[in-house]
Amino acid sequence: MQDQNQQAYDRGMTIFSPDGRLYQVEYAREAIKRGTASVGVRTTDGVVLAADRQVRSPLVEEQSIEKLHRIDDHIAVASAGHVADARQLIDFAREQAQVNRLRYDEPIGVEALAKEVTDYIQRHTQSGGVRPFGTALAIGGVDPDGTPKLFETDPSGTPYEWQATTIGGNRETLMSFLEDEYRGDLDLEGGITLALETLAQSNEDIDPEAVEVSVVDTETHRVRSLEAEEIDSHLAEFGGEGDE
Amino acid sequence: MQDQNQQAYDRGMTIFSPDGRLYQVEYAREAIKRGTASVGVRTTDGVVLAADRQVRSPLVEEQSIEKLHRIDDHIAVASAGHVADARQLIDFAREQAQVNRLRYDEPIGVEALAKEVTDYIQRHTQSGGVRPFGTALAIGGVDPDGTPKLFETDPSGTPYEWQATTIGGNRETLMSFLEDEYRGDLDLEGGITLALETLAQSNEDIDPEAVEVSVVDTETHRVRSLEAEEIDSHLAEFGGEGDE
Amino acid sequence: MQDQNQQAYDRGMTIFSPDGRLYQVEYAREAIKRGTASVGVRTTDGVVLAADRQVRSPLVEEQSIEKLHRIDDHIAVASAGHVADARQLIDFAREQAQVNRLRYDEPIGVEALAKEVTDYIQRHTQSGGVRPFGTALAIGGVDPDGTPKLFETDPSGTPYEWQATTIGGNRETLMSFLEDEYRGDLDLEGGITLALETLAQSNEDIDPEAVEVSVVDTETHRVRSLEAEEIDSHLAEFGGEGDE
Amino acid sequence: MQDQNQQAYDRGMTIFSPDGRLYQVEYAREAIKRGTASVGVRTTDGVVLAADRQVRSPLVEEQSIEKLHRIDDHIAVASAGHVADARQLIDFAREQAQVNRLRYDEPIGVEALAKEVTDYIQRHTQSGGVRPFGTALAIGGVDPDGTPKLFETDPSGTPYEWQATTIGGNRETLMSFLEDEYRGDLDLEGGITLALETLAQSNEDIDPEAVEVSVVDTETHRVRSLEAEEIDSHLAEFGGEGDE
Amino acid sequence: MQDQNQQAYDRGMTIFSPDGRLYQVEYAREAIKRGTASVGVRTTDGVVLAADRQVRSPLVEEQSIEKLHRIDDHIAVASAGHVADARQLIDFAREQAQVNRLRYDEPIGVEALAKEVTDYIQRHTQSGGVRPFGTALAIGGVDPDGTPKLFETDPSGTPYEWQATTIGGNRETLMSFLEDEYRGDLDLEGGITLALETLAQSNEDIDPEAVEVSVVDTETHRVRSLEAEEIDSHLAEFGGEGDE
Amino acid sequence: MQDQNQQAYDRGMTIFSPDGRLYQVEYAREAIKRGTASVGVRTTDGVVLAADRQVRSPLVEEQSIEKLHRIDDHIAVASAGHVADARQLIDFAREQAQVNRLRYDEPIGVEALAKEVTDYIQRHTQSGGVRPFGTALAIGGVDPDGTPKLFETDPSGTPYEWQATTIGGNRETLMSFLEDEYRGDLDLEGGITLALETLAQSNEDIDPEAVEVSVVDTETHRVRSLEAEEIDSHLAEFGGEGDE
Amino acid sequence: MQDQNQQAYDRGMTIFSPDGRLYQVEYAREAIKRGTASVGVRTTDGVVLAADRQVRSPLVEEQSIEKLHRIDDHIAVASAGHVADARQLIDFAREQAQVNRLRYDEPIGVEALAKEVTDYIQRHTQSGGVRPFGTALAIGGVDPDGTPKLFETDPSGTPYEWQATTIGGNRETLMSFLEDEYRGDLDLEGGITLALETLAQSNEDIDPEAVEVSVVDTETHRVRSLEAEEIDSHLAEFGGEGDE
Repeated sequence: MQDQNQQAYDRGMTIFSPDGRLYQVEYAREAIKRGTASVGVRTTDGVVLAADRQVRSPLVEEQSIEKLHRIDDHIAVASAGHVADARQLIDFAREQAQVNRLRYDEPIGVEALAKEVTDYIQRHTQSGGVRPFGTALAIGGVDPDGTPKLFETDPSGTPYEWQATTIGGNRETLMSFLEDEYRGDLDLEGGITLALETLAQSNEDIDPEAVEVSVVDTETHRVRSLEAEEIDSHLAEFGGEGDE
Repeated sequence: MQDQNQQAYDRGMTIFSPDGRLYQVEYAREAIKRGTASVGVRTTDGVVLAADRQVRSPLVEEQSIEKLHRIDDHIAVASAGHVADARQLIDFAREQAQVNRLRYDEPIGVEALAKEVTDYIQRHTQSGGVRPFGTALAIGGVDPDGTPKLFETDPSGTPYEWQATTIGGNRETLMSFLEDEYRGDLDLEGGITLALETLAQSNEDIDPEAVEVSVVDTETHRVRSLEAEEIDSHLAEFGGEGDE
Repeated sequence: MQDQNQQAYDRGMTIFSPDGRLYQVEYAREAIKRGTASVGVRTTDGVVLAADRQVRSPLVEEQSIEKLHRIDDHIAVASAGHVADARQLIDFAREQAQVNRLRYDEPIGVEALAKEVTDYIQRHTQSGGVRPFGTALAIGGVDPDGTPKLFETDPSGTPYEWQATTIGGNRETLMSFLEDEYRGDLDLEGGITLALETLAQSNEDIDPEAVEVSVVDTETHRVRSLEAEEIDSHLAEFGGEGDE
Repeated sequence: MQDQNQQAYDRGMTIFSPDGRLYQVEYAREAIKRGTASVGVRTTDGVVLAADRQVRSPLVEEQSIEKLHRIDDHIAVASAGHVADARQLIDFAREQAQVNRLRYDEPIGVEALAKEVTDYIQRHTQSGGVRPFGTALAIGGVDPDGTPKLFETDPSGTPYEWQATTIGGNRETLMSFLEDEYRGDLDLEGGITLALETLAQSNEDIDPEAVEVSVVDTETHRVRSLEAEEIDSHLAEFGGEGDE
Repeated sequence: MQDQNQQAYDRGMTIFSPDGRLYQVEYAREAIKRGTASVGVRTTDGVVLAADRQVRSPLVEEQSIEKLHRIDDHIAVASAGHVADARQLIDFAREQAQVNRLRYDEPIGVEALAKEVTDYIQRHTQSGGVRPFGTALAIGGVDPDGTPKLFETDPSGTPYEWQATTIGGNRETLMSFLEDEYRGDLDLEGGITLALETLAQSNEDIDPEAVEVSVVDTETHRVRSLEAEEIDSHLAEFGGEGDE
Repeated sequence: MQDQNQQAYDRGMTIFSPDGRLYQVEYAREAIKRGTASVGVRTTDGVVLAADRQVRSPLVEEQSIEKLHRIDDHIAVASAGHVADARQLIDFAREQAQVNRLRYDEPIGVEALAKEVTDYIQRHTQSGGVRPFGTALAIGGVDPDGTPKLFETDPSGTPYEWQATTIGGNRETLMSFLEDEYRGDLDLEGGITLALETLAQSNEDIDPEAVEVSVVDTETHRVRSLEAEEIDSHLAEFGGEGDE
Repeated sequence: MQDQNQQAYDRGMTIFSPDGRLYQVEYAREAIKRGTASVGVRTTDGVVLAADRQVRSPLVEEQSIEKLHRIDDHIAVASAGHVADARQLIDFAREQAQVNRLRYDEPIGVEALAKEVTDYIQRHTQSGGVRPFGTALAIGGVDPDGTPKLFETDPSGTPYEWQATTIGGNRETLMSFLEDEYRGDLDLEGGITLALETLAQSNEDIDPEAVEVSVVDTETHRVRSLEAEEIDSHLAEFGGEGDE
């Protein structure tokens, strides 16, 4: 599956292959596929982020497997891929949000944040002495003007805006489900159900304890994590709840 | 297609091959061919930039796939190739434009900007520890003296001025079309049609939503993005509109 | 067991393999497996850390084979793997704890400490010129609010919280034992016995002199090392004591 | 054509081969041969530089393919080879000329300039982390004392003075023509004709639009670019004009 | 004896092998085995260090083959392995001892010194651009509180405390002898005899001139080098003296 | 002619081969052999330097092929090998001569200068990131006390003093001629003839225009370049003149 | 003679081989064997250094082939191996001697100087970016207290004190002769004869002009170079004089 030429391009630093690809960046994408999936859904009155915590052992404290992270009052992030790398990007995003408040005395826009983060990622693909980040982020939030926004970052450092997206393992299946089911007029409640149903495509019995859901609504402009019961009732809507 | 010698020149840094080529620069050109096409056309009363947004998924917000970028009031840029690299060059170009206003209290000339950008690109081909940019730019604008100008930058860091040009995938076909159809006395309206018709050479049914067009005219000296209807009516002129 | 491709990814610096793995980090995990085991158990009224000192020679002073380290009044750490690397992380953790006291005039939280340490570890996996740490830590302590906490760090720089965990050699056997035997309502005394019984899975006759046990209880918030007799009486509970 | 030994010397930095050659410098010379030719002719009353612009497409603005560059009032330069590298050397030469005026309040001598440029080139062949310049320059001008001078620089950083020379592609043919036809008593008009006739050796029908000619005469000490008609009338002298 | 994989891990810098070993550190241990042996013995009233000077030529001044080094009034060090590396560690240890006196106005503890030295050694195993130290040290001394202490450092940077130990060549034989013969109630005189008898295991006829012995006793807290006659009389106790 | 082992030692930086040689330095010596020859002769009343200018083309200005260089009033240098490297050493030598005048208010001694230059050369053979100089110099001059001196530098950075020497191509033949013909009681005129006759050993018909001769005599302490006629008359003495 | 493994350890920097050797250091020792021999002899009333100048050509000024160097009034050095490297160490030694006078207002001890030099040498074996010195030194002198001393440095950076030693080519033969003939009660005159007789072991007819001898006696504490006649009369004592 890997030929001789490919080998030549992954030593030392991120450089171009004869067909114009950056292998280190593409290998970093593979690191993302190795993780569990997260889903982001933009709705008319807010943004939903949902993530599947794949617990290695019953002794792990599930809440320490952070897949959803609060960046600021009004922005949350779902991460997929190399966990330690994700933590660095989360920290970087938090700093940027804080800097914005200090400098301009107002919350950072979702797109502005996505661009700061992707600039930082890109620098790790062009200079020697560092490797790319093996992490994708789904950045969801509500802009100061009340618009819900959802962005995704990848290891190349490109920011795209999405109506709904999925990062991490099993992307093809989940994205195809999202493309079929997403409607632009979804409200937040519908968005939560869609996000969970999408996750359920790769993990049939979803344990409400093993799922994280965060929302930012256009009314409060605040990140809120859903309680297990709330998740459970959404799971019930499509028959995705576990046997508890 | 790739022989042993070639392999030897793409490790570590950008160095000369025995036949005097810089392979990393040539591989970066391949990255450009992998992208979608953009077209630039200089007319008697302004410059036109048009780009085809190849949308990976219906869920992507098309406007977040930026192919056309406003650099300053009077200059826009179309990019092709590695998207994250393009964003760095765009940021660099914006800074240069701003610096010019601060230092000389006047808008930067199009050629001056193209040269600043290509100097920056060239430095990424001669020093160790960095790789070239996998990006081409078409820089269009109106000079302070009212002259419309169109420049192109490539990964080697060479600035050329064009009457009309195309960057990105499918270049041979599109350039050959442009060479046949371009006339020096085109006005802005004719230029818009030509730019769209050129794009249509590689993508038969052009969705007006999936096309971006920006113009800078010699009267206002300002970048203006065309609305979908305006694009649509130009598409109609050569039968290139989609089925909506 | 090791193929050609793998070889290509372990030279020079930590970079991604085509399947998205960081081999240097995975090799560092092997260094951890080569060491003796340590166990951490969180109980209702404190945290237990226990370690097996594999003494190379009867002439070594056992207490100089440090497996358990006091980081601050209220936090202790068990280490496994490359001993010299562990000492660097211990020193780093102590500095962080001290800095927290100086800066905020209060003891550092267990999770906050775990995150400082893993950030430091992660930086050793992304920049050139350094190698990852071949060390895992189990960080146990009582938070200023009285909550007992147990975290684990690995060479990738990921912090996970555990109810009970084991680091070092023989992990599969010991973890499976822990998963079977751990109950959330264990008190400190029960936790000590469980920790020792877990260690005994890989080392049948446990010499009370060769075992270190430290506890941090929710009453005193202080690290305390158990005396040999105390360890001995716990060993007696499950028949794990040696023949002395 | 390239043997194993050769491969060993072109990686990383510019070092000696067993037969005492610097391959990176020799490969850079190949980059020069890949370009179009430029000609320099020193005459009794001035220096002539002429260059052939090989236009890739009729849509390129010919004047943006700079082969001749004004360095200062009294010095012009013709370049051949890697265009982006040439631009860096041109910029460097302009700075040196300006520095001379600021420091000594007089125009820089042609030889002094050639030496500054070649020192700069040589440094790119002896230190690691950079590659040589893939560019040759013909530097022509009139010294403050009224002497016309013509120098050439190569990628090794050696400055030679010439009565007449050619850089770029097809050197053997053109130089042999120059050696046959050059006479020391040529005046400027004769020099222009000889320069064009030399260019014509490699490009039979010379389009006056596609040729650049600059002269520096001993009377005005100023660089002057010839108009197309002037070039045309010189082409007529040896039957080298195109069919317009 | 050395397979392909191993080769891959010893180039450039100290990195992990697939089985979690640091080959450069292990190779440095081999450098230690190539040297002559030194022995350290802790007794009830002091510490003994003894070393065998393997003289290459009768013309070498034996006392210039330093195997035992005074670090401070109360601490001595025996070294084994790469001599030039040992000298650097000795110098570093002396500086640390001096710094301690300047900063705290009291002699440095033996363990504190061992840890400073091993931290310094560890840094030479984790950062690029340096190689590990090919040297082991036995650090013996009397703490300010009167406790005799004996530590050993290795190329990984791990400090262990010993009752008695041996560094350098022939370790297995010598350590096994020490393990058999060492008793915790040895006094200084008995310790000297044991140290010499241990050395004699690898070098049957010990020339008292070729042996160095240093002691630090708990009464004077001072390093003292034994005279040849004193050594001779100890050798006589077990029949290890030469034929003089 | 070049075996596998040799290949291994010429990559990256100047390091020792198993037989204790510095290949990069030896390859740099090959660069010297590729050039034309220069000759230095010390006589009772001055030093002679003579060089053969191998003109690539009749259009090159011969005097721009500098083989002899004035360093200070009383010292001249002949160079052989890589021309661009020689220029750097010449510049360095001139600076040293100037520094000596500024610092001590007197001309630099010939030996002192040779040592400054060779120290500079040696540093280019021991540190990474640079390559050796592919150049030999013959440094001739008259010391402030009136003694004529002749030194030679090589790429290793060793200064030797000579009565007469030759650098550059054909060394064996020329040196053997010098060894046969040199007499210690030669005066300056005889030295000039000997130098030219030596050059003639490798280039039968010597064109007086193509030969450079510089002398420093003990009376004036000044470098003087010989005119063509003066060279011609010396050539006549041994029948070495050309056919003009 | 050189196997595959060995090749792997001599690239880039000085690192350990699997058997614990530093190949670059051992290769540097080979550089020393390639040179001519020098001899050092310590006597009751001073130290003798003698060296054989192997003259490449009768035209070389023998005194410029420096094998013996005055470091300070009371210390001289003989060098062997790579000449340009030796010169750097000599310069370093002179600076250290000067620094000692400035700082402590007294001459540097011979051992102190040997240690400064070997520390400097060792640093060139442990850090990247430099290679070891291919040079051995015999450092002879008289300490301020009147004791004659003789030290030797090698490429690893180890200082040993000798009664008599030889560095450079043919060491085995010469050292064996020295070991047979050296007596501790030799006076300076006897030492000179022994040194010359030792040199004669590898070079049958010793030309008094081709031999350098320096002595430092305990009376004057000053380095003195012997005149040819003085050398000649010593040669006569054992029949080692040439045919003059």
